Amino acid sequence: MIALAVFGTGRIGQVHARNIAALPGVRLKYVVDPVASAARDELAAGLGAQVAAPDTVFADPDVDGVVIASPTDTHAGLLLDAVTAKMAVFCEKPVSLDFPTVAGVTTQVEASGVPVMLGFQRRYDPNFRTVRDRIAAGTSGRLEQLVMHTRDPGPPPVSYVRVSGGMLRDQAVHDFDQARYMTGEEIASLYAIGNCQIDPDIGAAGDIDSLMVTMLTASGRMVQMSNNRRGPLGYDQRLEAHCAREVLFIDNRPQNDLRIAGPEGALSAPPMDYFIARFEAAYRNEMIAFVEMIRNGTPPLAGIRDGLEAQRLAEAALVSIATGAPVALSPDWQP
Amino acid sequence: MIALAVFGTGRIGQVHARNIAALPGVRLKYVVDPVASAARDELAAGLGAQVAAPDTVFADPDVDGVVIASPTDTHAGLLLDAVTAKMAVFCEKPVSLDFPTVAGVTTQVEASGVPVMLGFQRRYDPNFRTVRDRIAAGTSGRLEQLVMHTRDPGPPPVSYVRVSGGMLRDQAVHDFDQARYMTGEEIASLYAIGNCQIDPDIGAAGDIDSLMVTMLTASGRMVQMSNNRRGPLGYDQRLEAHCAREVLFIDNRPQNDLRIAGPEGALSAPPMDYFIARFEAAYRNEMIAFVEMIRNGTPPLAGIRDGLEAQRLAEAALVSIATGAPVALSPDWQP
Amino acid sequence: MIALAVFGTGRIGQVHARNIAALPGVRLKYVVDPVASAARDELAAGLGAQVAAPDTVFADPDVDGVVIASPTDTHAGLLLDAVTAKMAVFCEKPVSLDFPTVAGVTTQVEASGVPVMLGFQRRYDPNFRTVRDRIAAGTSGRLEQLVMHTRDPGPPPVSYVRVSGGMLRDQAVHDFDQARYMTGEEIASLYAIGNCQIDPDIGAAGDIDSLMVTMLTASGRMVQMSNNRRGPLGYDQRLEAHCAREVLFIDNRPQNDLRIAGPEGALSAPPMDYFIARFEAAYRNEMIAFVEMIRNGTPPLAGIRDGLEAQRLAEAALVSIATGAPVALSPDWQP
Amino acid sequence: MIALAVFGTGRIGQVHARNIAALPGVRLKYVVDPVASAARDELAAGLGAQVAAPDTVFADPDVDGVVIASPTDTHAGLLLDAVTAKMAVFCEKPVSLDFPTVAGVTTQVEASGVPVMLGFQRRYDPNFRTVRDRIAAGTSGRLEQLVMHTRDPGPPPVSYVRVSGGMLRDQAVHDFDQARYMTGEEIASLYAIGNCQIDPDIGAAGDIDSLMVTMLTASGRMVQMSNNRRGPLGYDQRLEAHCAREVLFIDNRPQNDLRIAGPEGALSAPPMDYFIARFEAAYRNEMIAFVEMIRNGTPPLAGIRDGLEAQRLAEAALVSIATGAPVALSPDWQP
Repeated sequence: MIALAVFGTGRIGQVHARNIAALPGVRLKYVVDPVASAARDELAAGLGAQVAAPDTVFADPDVDGVVIASPTDTHAGLLLDAVTAKMAVFCEKPVSLDFPTVAGVTTQVEASGVPVMLGFQRRYDPNFRTVRDRIAAGTSGRLEQLVMHTRDPGPPPVSYVRVSGGMLRDQAVHDFDQARYMTGEEIASLYAIGNCQIDPDIGAAGDIDSLMVTMLTASGRMVQMSNNRRGPLGYDQRLEAHCAREVLFIDNRPQNDLRIAGPEGALSAPPMDYFIARFEAAYRNEMIAFVEMIRNGTPPLAGIRDGLEAQRLAEAALVSIATGAPVALSPDWQP
Repeated sequence: MIALAVFGTGRIGQVHARNIAALPGVRLKYVVDPVASAARDELAAGLGAQVAAPDTVFADPDVDGVVIASPTDTHAGLLLDAVTAKMAVFCEKPVSLDFPTVAGVTTQVEASGVPVMLGFQRRYDPNFRTVRDRIAAGTSGRLEQLVMHTRDPGPPPVSYVRVSGGMLRDQAVHDFDQARYMTGEEIASLYAIGNCQIDPDIGAAGDIDSLMVTMLTASGRMVQMSNNRRGPLGYDQRLEAHCAREVLFIDNRPQNDLRIAGPEGALSAPPMDYFIARFEAAYRNEMIAFVEMIRNGTPPLAGIRDGLEAQRLAEAALVSIATGAPVALSPDWQP
Repeated sequence: MIALAVFGTGRIGQVHARNIAALPGVRLKYVVDPVASAARDELAAGLGAQVAAPDTVFADPDVDGVVIASPTDTHAGLLLDAVTAKMAVFCEKPVSLDFPTVAGVTTQVEASGVPVMLGFQRRYDPNFRTVRDRIAAGTSGRLEQLVMHTRDPGPPPVSYVRVSGGMLRDQAVHDFDQARYMTGEEIASLYAIGNCQIDPDIGAAGDIDSLMVTMLTASGRMVQMSNNRRGPLGYDQRLEAHCAREVLFIDNRPQNDLRIAGPEGALSAPPMDYFIARFEAAYRNEMIAFVEMIRNGTPPLAGIRDGLEAQRLAEAALVSIATGAPVALSPDWQP
Repeated sequence: MIALAVFGTGRIGQVHARNIAALPGVRLKYVVDPVASAARDELAAGLGAQVAAPDTVFADPDVDGVVIASPTDTHAGLLLDAVTAKMAVFCEKPVSLDFPTVAGVTTQVEASGVPVMLGFQRRYDPNFRTVRDRIAAGTSGRLEQLVMHTRDPGPPPVSYVRVSGGMLRDQAVHDFDQARYMTGEEIASLYAIGNCQIDPDIGAAGDIDSLMVTMLTASGRMVQMSNNRRGPLGYDQRLEAHCAREVLFIDNRPQNDLRIAGPEGALSAPPMDYFIARFEAAYRNEMIAFVEMIRNGTPPLAGIRDGLEAQRLAEAALVSIATGAPVALSPDWQP
């Protein structure tokens, strides 16, 4: 029996806790949240877990791994505590909004040998994973052009933008991760344009709500992203991989399977809304993989370094937007 | 140079005339319509043809074939005149609304040896033809269940219903033809329900506007039709061939390639409207095949007997609706 | 806190048990299965329920309702036991393979006043429910023609066919139920053809594997079903409601959201396979509605009489297939 | 009766000639091609036109307009000759591969007052036009992000690349034109990456076969293009207009309306192949609009200056690729 603890009982912490509880041979031992709430206590009660303080978890030799889904500014600390306790870690991204901190933690984690998995859930989505697998296996032929779309159903509150690190670090970072995952390469250069076209309050808070990025890998593959904070069609998450032998499209998943046809045409359902629903399978797969990593040492699809590299691209995009010039990247590039 | 004459300058006669004019090595020599009209004269002038009387056409040894697209009650007479003149014939269906007349003409035509082609345009539509070819070639495995939909964009005027022979003979006859074409068999039994749900005037005129038919072939294949005179989605022309190895769907062709997405979902275009547009390629292919038949003796996809057999099924469906019982069919079944 | 018991720990019993466990304010108290199995014991242990004998359940005043998901031949007995114990019932269909037994149990249940809900899960599927709601609310205009498709991914073992009551009673009964649910009317007449085109062993066992049904309601609405035991495209569950103002299509839900495009065209995923996955949301909604019925007396979408009426149609279809004639139905029609 | 002449009897010249012949009240008087060929003579004979030398055309006061579909290096000369003769002009793009020449001709044409229309056929495609009209009318809300895809079915022969001016000037120029047409603005800055990933011979000839472009308009709208010379899915021509109230998608038009479903999924047809088929309606609409321009002075959707501005963007993209830096544009920017 594998015993796990979940830190954080917000939306995503609850998803992870329930997914853990449904896994055979796995037990959710602890739920950790310094903020007492009905949600926290019901979650623990319903799943037969104890509400505990971090120290209790890290001191319990029974615990095989921890899931960090608490606020971003606690990630780095909890991650290092877990590593010190030799507990396997699943950590939601980002490790920190401060790039040097991410770099430092990455170095420490890698030196420790403790297995750490990062919450880039798209890597565990069946669609994205199938595309990656076909490309990696050579079925599709060489990937030449990758085009991605990420749009939120509506702009986040400005309060969120302030703590999230902004659109590049909280949203586009998933596309930056996919750029590396799909091409199987590091990005050699990057050019970004970003501005505020949707919500002036976001602009006033110093962030952007509209973004386009172009990237080139060392071997010449091309990558394009277009992102914003509000698409009228809802949560827009698509990808096109133009390869030498086939083109792979990931479409949005509609909320239902109805078409309603009349004289104006046929109306089909909007995309699933929002990430909790759209990536339900991906979140389940993440916990399965986390347990696999603990049990059999299976390397995760997204490791600690993937977080660092995706964040490096987000930082580079911010520089490109600020300077109006492309950024040439290298393994030691820093903002 | 092959010389042809077109009888009738209504909508479909004009389509055939223009398609003939576009064929290399073919000349539209005559346009025949007893009713003088600007449309008739402009058609002839624009295509370099002469307006002529039927006798002129049948007396001209230059003429290789005639296209009969005049009103239904003239079909049988013109067909027999052409056969007497040893001219190849393309005839719009039906040969006659009177079943014994159709049977008689069919016998005479077959005895004459003159090649006659019938205007079941769906057989020449690339979609329907591909489905038939995959089934006939064995690619799809045995066809087990065939489901067809035919709906008009709106009810015809009652005046049309009175001369068309009604919904079974003017519209559903195309599906009866497809039932035979797709299964490659004669129909052994048939059950139909029909009523008037859409336009009471049609009912008052003694016709139906809604129809469902079930058929069984001798080898046990099953066929279903659902038809009406007004689908809110427009001109609805679909087919599903459920075979042992694959299922073939013919969908409606949308009027354009737009999707307009908003919070309610994505709207795609209604089907092409109406048969002149939807079957544009089929009509072109009909004239190509007519010329092929004349030039090389290539048998047409739809011959004179196909008209008789499809009409037999329409008559049987009328009997089934009237009696409320299924009809067992045989080669000599008559209404 | 509402306490429930689940009878039967096969595939569908497990689904219901887990869905119950996930509901707030609801407790799965008992799991009942006379056949000891690891699955039964793990299910109970994992969900904090006791394994118990039927008598214990029916004698426990704590129990608010029972879910009957045991083999068909136990349904009627358990249903009546529960009614005697004044416990609300959710019962998988059919109540019995023997029509008079179903009729008798229905009468007894209705006389008892105990609320009973029947497991026609499609009524709880968001797609089917939305279609029904739009029609019932008048949004769609009058429903004129209803076309349904039900095909299994592959033929069941003959052993299953022997206990299931055959294709009409185990599979097509869902479409018969939808015919009543969607039209909001009883069926006035019915014609069916059925034969064995796919698996000769099914024919040898006295059942059919291919079916087409045509129905007419008292007000003249038309209904068509086409069903078989193996569609090459997999689990095929579609519906078309042709109404006066719009046409509602329920399409199959693809297994994923990929399109893979190459020179031959674009390949999209096959439908979800099989009913446990396809109707996952419907099964969740069933348990929510069952608890609603217990808590607030909300009438279920499918009651005991709906089972009787759907089964009457299945029996009538068997008669129609056997006699080759349509069957006129009345409230007291019996096979 | 309006009389026209067509210069050039290659593929596109033939399309224009036949479309002209089909217009009521319009006569194709001359066909001009210095290279004698069966195609030229058959075209003229079939459409009742004379084969003539340029001088004959320009000297004939009967001629209302000329269509220039001859090789690119003859465009500027013929255009100026027509303007001198006060004949309305439809000219295929580009006016010249030499940007200063285009600029010079544009100035002369505008000074002359002779109406000139340019062959950006997408502006006349019903899909592209509807998108533009909805945006221009305000229906869609403000256009914020525009994403376009253009891929050829296969790389052109190197001989073509040598005379076409390369991928930017012969293919991507259509997207540059759409960028201006859809946004209704001039482009303020542009960044492009281009390389040779598909056909080394193209690279050896000094051209690219893969391209991505990012543009920003003065008001902050964002535009992205991804182009190449060979997509495995065939002729790929798509557009997404992300606006404040709706998202407009132009999808590829499939070659037929079949879906073939089996255990692997459902295969739908590849896109129409190639531009002659895909833009058939657009070419018809161009000639209708050309005649409208002559008859009523209706301004064309694409005028002489649109060619200059689209080509300016192509030149800027070449500069960006060469320098690796974005290019800031102004009305007098020159390469």
